[in-house]
Amino acid sequence: MDGMKGTSWQQRYSANEIFTLRCRILDKPGMLAKVSELIGTAGGNIGDIKLVCVEDDYQIRDITVYLKDKGQLDRIEKSVNALEGVEIIKKVNEILEIHRKGVIDVVSRVPIKTLTDLRMVYTPGVAQSCEEIVKNPQSAKELTTLCNTVAIITNGTAVLGLGDIGVVPSLPVMEGKAAIFAEFANISAIPILVDTKDTKKFIDTVMTIAPSFGAIQLEDVAAPQCFEIEEALREKLNIPVFHDDQHGTATVVLAALINAMKQTGRNPQDCKVIMLGAGAAGIAISKILVEYGIGDVVVYDSTGPIYRGRTEKMNPYKQQLAEITNKQNQQTPFAQGFEGKDIFVGVARPNMVTKEMVASMAKDSIVFPLSNPVGEITKEDAAEAGAAITADGRDCNNALVYPGIFRGALDANAPQITPKMQLAAAKTAASLAAEGDLLPDMLDRDVHKKIAQAVAESAKN
Amino acid sequence: MDGMKGTSWQQRYSANEIFTLRCRILDKPGMLAKVSELIGTAGGNIGDIKLVCVEDDYQIRDITVYLKDKGQLDRIEKSVNALEGVEIIKKVNEILEIHRKGVIDVVSRVPIKTLTDLRMVYTPGVAQSCEEIVKNPQSAKELTTLCNTVAIITNGTAVLGLGDIGVVPSLPVMEGKAAIFAEFANISAIPILVDTKDTKKFIDTVMTIAPSFGAIQLEDVAAPQCFEIEEALREKLNIPVFHDDQHGTATVVLAALINAMKQTGRNPQDCKVIMLGAGAAGIAISKILVEYGIGDVVVYDSTGPIYRGRTEKMNPYKQQLAEITNKQNQQTPFAQGFEGKDIFVGVARPNMVTKEMVASMAKDSIVFPLSNPVGEITKEDAAEAGAAITADGRDCNNALVYPGIFRGALDANAPQITPKMQLAAAKTAASLAAEGDLLPDMLDRDVHKKIAQAVAESAKN
Repeated sequence: MDGMKGTSWQQRYSANEIFTLRCRILDKPGMLAKVSELIGTAGGNIGDIKLVCVEDDYQIRDITVYLKDKGQLDRIEKSVNALEGVEIIKKVNEILEIHRKGVIDVVSRVPIKTLTDLRMVYTPGVAQSCEEIVKNPQSAKELTTLCNTVAIITNGTAVLGLGDIGVVPSLPVMEGKAAIFAEFANISAIPILVDTKDTKKFIDTVMTIAPSFGAIQLEDVAAPQCFEIEEALREKLNIPVFHDDQHGTATVVLAALINAMKQTGRNPQDCKVIMLGAGAAGIAISKILVEYGIGDVVVYDSTGPIYRGRTEKMNPYKQQLAEITNKQNQQTPFAQGFEGKDIFVGVARPNMVTKEMVASMAKDSIVFPLSNPVGEITKEDAAEAGAAITADGRDCNNALVYPGIFRGALDANAPQITPKMQLAAAKTAASLAAEGDLLPDMLDRDVHKKIAQAVAESAKN
Repeated sequence: MDGMKGTSWQQRYSANEIFTLRCRILDKPGMLAKVSELIGTAGGNIGDIKLVCVEDDYQIRDITVYLKDKGQLDRIEKSVNALEGVEIIKKVNEILEIHRKGVIDVVSRVPIKTLTDLRMVYTPGVAQSCEEIVKNPQSAKELTTLCNTVAIITNGTAVLGLGDIGVVPSLPVMEGKAAIFAEFANISAIPILVDTKDTKKFIDTVMTIAPSFGAIQLEDVAAPQCFEIEEALREKLNIPVFHDDQHGTATVVLAALINAMKQTGRNPQDCKVIMLGAGAAGIAISKILVEYGIGDVVVYDSTGPIYRGRTEKMNPYKQQLAEITNKQNQQTPFAQGFEGKDIFVGVARPNMVTKEMVASMAKDSIVFPLSNPVGEITKEDAAEAGAAITADGRDCNNALVYPGIFRGALDANAPQITPKMQLAAAKTAASLAAEGDLLPDMLDRDVHKKIAQAVAESAKN
């Protein structure tokens, strides 16, 4: 993201694969340098190097390498093992290692050291809490974790870029989200796998267990089922229900766009947006842009532009979109749709956009090819074709906003998360970015706290 | 529990009500003594006394008092406030205070301090874990919290002695159990409230979310629904399903009885038991006693003895019980049922047993009036009537065994918790009691570890 060049977190190291190689290296001057050189030549970046022990004529060292892909690892292994006096005796996949036994824990907030502790936390003392809640149902939010619990609910039908992989394989993602909730917002988040593709059964199941939670985050449920599920749950429950792939994404994209428009001297109400993708994220981003007051959005799906009167491959959600977007009811094909537009946002498929398309946009255009892991166009190509500001899916991470949105909603005891609360989150996130950046540092706990405060404030007004 | 007189934990302070009174006390010698005396006279026991601050001529002190009931609190307030120069300016119910905002937290096991951390715990790194589980479904137990997660599931229909209070008021109990799981067995336990009294819907709901958990503890579900639910879930799921009110209770009672029989010089196979109560606990205790090899058990419910051929107020579970208990098909009324029996176990209602009944039992009888919070007979009355060993519901706490049973089952990757595993837990618990005690100190983490090891061992053989 060009606008983020100056931020500290962008400079931190990131990679797709991280391995630690335990190497047995002949204890002779220059050997470690040779190993390091081979790793570098194969494209690996070296992180920590630890001396595990020295035995006879050998050193045992753990060398952590950051890699783009597993092919690099094969090359490193081959070349290092070919070096006389050196042998890789063990390799550890650090990403799988971090997920080993899961990344979250449920802990007791109260130490149970004495019988009195036990009798207060559990029977007979706990009966007082139960009786208090029977007398005064509202006190449940005071006397239980309901004030702090979010269920992260999925049926595993649209997991990351992996698709419909089923519930159990999606669990590491839900745990990762829960770890982020805990670290950034002190929220107790609980992964719940709902093992059904049947919409009614999904809704019924969630309704039946909903009293267990203070709020619900839907995650990685395929469109258009996700719309129906969210709509039904929002209607029936009086706790926040928030499909992160829609609204979390929309909120963070709006935050980045607010700064991108500012940095290119644009007024939102004058901006024209071309949007590619009418799934969960595309529809939600389009809606929040309209809500924010953007000039106009024209949404394209694989069939073409969405407009009032289109009959092919529509659904109620696209229909609704047709009513609030595309003011001039434009029916231009996708390639020509770029002409004169200020902003492109893509949440569809890799490599759908050419340099020519970007070149036809307004001067100093804003190009967000967000498709993951490969964008609709590379940021480099977009910049070459004239884009002033670019951001991809890696730059716009939901984790910047969802912890604060839920923290704010829970703190305000809000019965739902409204578009107004999302706008408050987006504006606050935008305002916290460093000069010249699009988004603030999501590792900064203070950012999440301020988003939470803004959301809670907005919920109360 | 007579046999436990010598244990250290039994001597620790316990009470039904704990309040902290913030008192404004004239700073004059003897005033604190006067306040203390009034509290003692009203029946309160004083715990910590903290000097909060000294202002002008007054001391502000927080005095924690342990009380039998709230009536004592009223008396203390009246008499203390009547004392010149003293005023209670605030009172805090410490039990409700401990439960404020709940007693459990979900935390991240992995600190998220750098972007690399974030990209390993969450996207894009987490995709590796997902893909690994897709390739090799068994790896889910390695790469997620499934190896460590127990759902504590209730529909709130039989909560403590409070009865059918509904799901949300039961949440503090589930949280308390989860806190114990965390403290005693490092298990991540998650309260799940299933808001239905319909057996089929309960089962379907749990089946649909079951992939989220490594094991299931059913809790406070009314009999006989609890039997059908447990049976169905055990049959359909290949993870441990364990109704604690049945099997946890049965295991801890057996452990205490093993030592009671030993201390009164009895052989289990010669012992005759009279059991009162044929609900969840009564049926489970009777079954484990038979499984353990006790001489005979005769079970009574409100209708009378359960025997083969009885038609009144039977159900399939009592029918099953009739087949394995009451060897001589005895139809004696309850009062006469005590004659010559070695052991009485009550899990029914307060004050159902008279001293005469106990007096008619065998010499040095064992009397366990376990009904909560008031037993079938007091331990004192039972002892006066000739019982050599007594224990009540407070002495036999499930929390002694359920953490270790689940830890062992999870560690052994057991598909279910069998009677054999329960017997292993009971025998191990019994063996860890100090000389002359019935049960070991449940605050001793080592006790839970040893129970877990025995259960895991038993699961593997």
